[in-house]
Amino acid sequence: MFDYDLLVIGAGPGGQTAALRAAKLGKRVAVVEAREPGGTCVNRGCVSTKTLLHSSELYRSAREGVAVGVHAEGLRADLGEIFQNKLRVAQTLSAGVETMFKSAKIPLLRGRAKILEPHRVRVTGPEGEIEVTAEAILIATGAEPIRLPLPGMDLPNVLTSEELLQGPDHLYRSLVIIGGGVIGIEFACFFSDLGVDVTVLEGLDRLLPMLDRELGQNLALILKKKNVRVCTGALVERAEQTETGIRVHFTMKGKPDFAEGEAVLCAVGRRAAWEGLFAEGLTPELEGRILKVNERYETSIPGVYAIGDVASNTQLAHVASAQGQAFAELFCGQESRVDMRVVPSCVYCRPEIAVVGLTDAEAKARSIPVKTGKCVLGGNARTLIEDPGRSFMKVLAHAETGKILGAQLMCLNAPDMISQISQAIANGMTPRQLLLAMRPHPSFEEALTEALEDLAAKLEKQ
Amino acid sequence: MFDYDLLVIGAGPGGQTAALRAAKLGKRVAVVEAREPGGTCVNRGCVSTKTLLHSSELYRSAREGVAVGVHAEGLRADLGEIFQNKLRVAQTLSAGVETMFKSAKIPLLRGRAKILEPHRVRVTGPEGEIEVTAEAILIATGAEPIRLPLPGMDLPNVLTSEELLQGPDHLYRSLVIIGGGVIGIEFACFFSDLGVDVTVLEGLDRLLPMLDRELGQNLALILKKKNVRVCTGALVERAEQTETGIRVHFTMKGKPDFAEGEAVLCAVGRRAAWEGLFAEGLTPELEGRILKVNERYETSIPGVYAIGDVASNTQLAHVASAQGQAFAELFCGQESRVDMRVVPSCVYCRPEIAVVGLTDAEAKARSIPVKTGKCVLGGNARTLIEDPGRSFMKVLAHAETGKILGAQLMCLNAPDMISQISQAIANGMTPRQLLLAMRPHPSFEEALTEALEDLAAKLEKQ
Repeated sequence: MFDYDLLVIGAGPGGQTAALRAAKLGKRVAVVEAREPGGTCVNRGCVSTKTLLHSSELYRSAREGVAVGVHAEGLRADLGEIFQNKLRVAQTLSAGVETMFKSAKIPLLRGRAKILEPHRVRVTGPEGEIEVTAEAILIATGAEPIRLPLPGMDLPNVLTSEELLQGPDHLYRSLVIIGGGVIGIEFACFFSDLGVDVTVLEGLDRLLPMLDRELGQNLALILKKKNVRVCTGALVERAEQTETGIRVHFTMKGKPDFAEGEAVLCAVGRRAAWEGLFAEGLTPELEGRILKVNERYETSIPGVYAIGDVASNTQLAHVASAQGQAFAELFCGQESRVDMRVVPSCVYCRPEIAVVGLTDAEAKARSIPVKTGKCVLGGNARTLIEDPGRSFMKVLAHAETGKILGAQLMCLNAPDMISQISQAIANGMTPRQLLLAMRPHPSFEEALTEALEDLAAKLEKQ
Repeated sequence: MFDYDLLVIGAGPGGQTAALRAAKLGKRVAVVEAREPGGTCVNRGCVSTKTLLHSSELYRSAREGVAVGVHAEGLRADLGEIFQNKLRVAQTLSAGVETMFKSAKIPLLRGRAKILEPHRVRVTGPEGEIEVTAEAILIATGAEPIRLPLPGMDLPNVLTSEELLQGPDHLYRSLVIIGGGVIGIEFACFFSDLGVDVTVLEGLDRLLPMLDRELGQNLALILKKKNVRVCTGALVERAEQTETGIRVHFTMKGKPDFAEGEAVLCAVGRRAAWEGLFAEGLTPELEGRILKVNERYETSIPGVYAIGDVASNTQLAHVASAQGQAFAELFCGQESRVDMRVVPSCVYCRPEIAVVGLTDAEAKARSIPVKTGKCVLGGNARTLIEDPGRSFMKVLAHAETGKILGAQLMCLNAPDMISQISQAIANGMTPRQLLLAMRPHPSFEEALTEALEDLAAKLEKQ
């Protein structure tokens, strides 16, 4: 008899969802966590950046408040307090996870886990070592930021997002951000809102290169208006300390150039975190750097499963949660019911970005005939009131079946609208079906009606 | 031959949509408007209040910014500028309507319309009188605020929402609002955000009495925390001028009481606006005060149609727009495709409210067996970050068929989430179908997943 039916390693979004779900379905579950419950997301990731952005956006909108009759002459952002508030939110959510574990009678084992053999884990914590056995072991240890293997990347003020999120001791005059992906962009927004001179260096030809081209291009225009220096196609070569800060050398179209900042954020990606997790001789099969799993989340080691960033190249908290739930349901003999092929993705810049499914370019590359409906929100009342910069929505459908295949939204509240489209993709719906609904006025989602009408008209005109 | 195929009277949301749609479908269309294009909504209604609320919410959040590290010591709201900004937004949208008319080659006839006989209208404008003939005449003249027929309601500082929206010459110390419906509540939020002592008097037993009980009750608690005095079951008897302001006398549970304010807003409803519209002898059939129409929007006068507030007790801009579109499509021999039975409704308080379909109480009254799924957003990360007060979501489904029948959302961004439910009702969908979609993290709509899971579990447990 094992100590537990399921031992989950890692209490981030994936691990906690799996643990709670399995416990609810009657399994005896324990969770191992080396740091704070809640994982990267709550403590060093997406929730943290959104909390920071909440402060910086308030600061920025108060500064720009004159346009709407609000004067804030003595405005001041207190960086220490802003990061203190971030910590407060993280601690509240982290404590919430602990409370849920307690209610579900899930022991939280504090310490680092090492899988000694199938079904057996050693936990090394502040109070010593224990060994635990379980029918199944679920690895949900997430990912950790990587550093560029280039000269100067070990200088003291070259920071990863995790390091930067610990809170600088003062507000930088200037910051160079290497990487124009989601993390880089969200930090660019935070610091530029606060008046910091920000430079973003992206190696590919546009910001957010993994998303639809128009999103990154539009975002670059918006950031430039906020005095952010945006360099795309910028290949970073090295960083060096100068008297005033750190100089990052790069080439752009073959020409050497540089950017200087009091600090540098290196936001070039995250890698699966499993160092020290496996006892010698216990070698899981990999796929690149991530743990290889099958459709039931099984690794190559019997009884050992993996979900989330440690086993997936889509590094998103909600994917980890969905996989956690799916794993638990499969493990308990139930069918999993979330459509794993439909994955939304958001960027919390201003205006926000939310996307799901195919882009035009991806459809073209895969020879899928599509039509695209579009609405620019220039005439949308709430957008006019809030004035977040150029906003638009695109929705794609299969040109023959008329089924919705994807959407790219760049507008305020986009992350709360995207699931209208996600569920339509998952349920095989057409624009006309979504157009049955009257959207309220004034709302941002009125524009979705316009984009869908444009799409429906194009599908019907063929 | 008539001058036009369609003459639309009123360029509000209903009239403009009907005109643009009919023109797009090839009809010769003209529009008569006595005031600014855009109608009540843009100029004296929902867009105006949302613009004001945008300013007041910025003021309030800047004042409360200390909690998130933003200090605004010299904060000041300039009422003149706030109303000037409201005017700017209205004028931009109004000009947008004119531009759309021009692009669609729709003449805008300035003046008051009088229907002389079927197919013939006299327009009396600044440049004199003209007569116009049309195959069809569409009345889209909307509604106007009513005053209580009580002593003192004609005092100079007893105002309707239209009068108040023209902009007071200074910020009142105190304001008494008669009516705890949508308009009353939105003004209560605006003025209390700016630090005005606000009293709300509602005759029925709760705020927003036309909505689900929990919404009004929760809102009352939230308003009380903001130092708004909320009196429900308050039957207003009269108002009188005192030395310091206006005293409104009312009884509550039979006991006499009063509230005093520098001004009084009378927000007790709006009535269909058709005074002076019909020539003598041309009497349309009424239903109460509204014009009676059939399912094709025909009034009892041949060739005369009506949509929007003048012909509907549901006084909502998006209903008027939807009816405008439906009328135009029917008029042009097309089928109308919006589900008119599914009508969302929003209140722009904080947190926002958005509802659609049935409530628990309505289901009970109609003997429809339902189950309700609920999520309180205490653990929702974005709600924790933005801290808008107690937020929750309820979703109802038929206990036997499992089909979704309604939802009540009280949380930030609710107006941009409600159509997920509206389209589900219109398409006869179940919670499990909406649960196929992974909702992004961190978002407000994650809570919808929780409410839907609660609902699905209850439906399946039966």
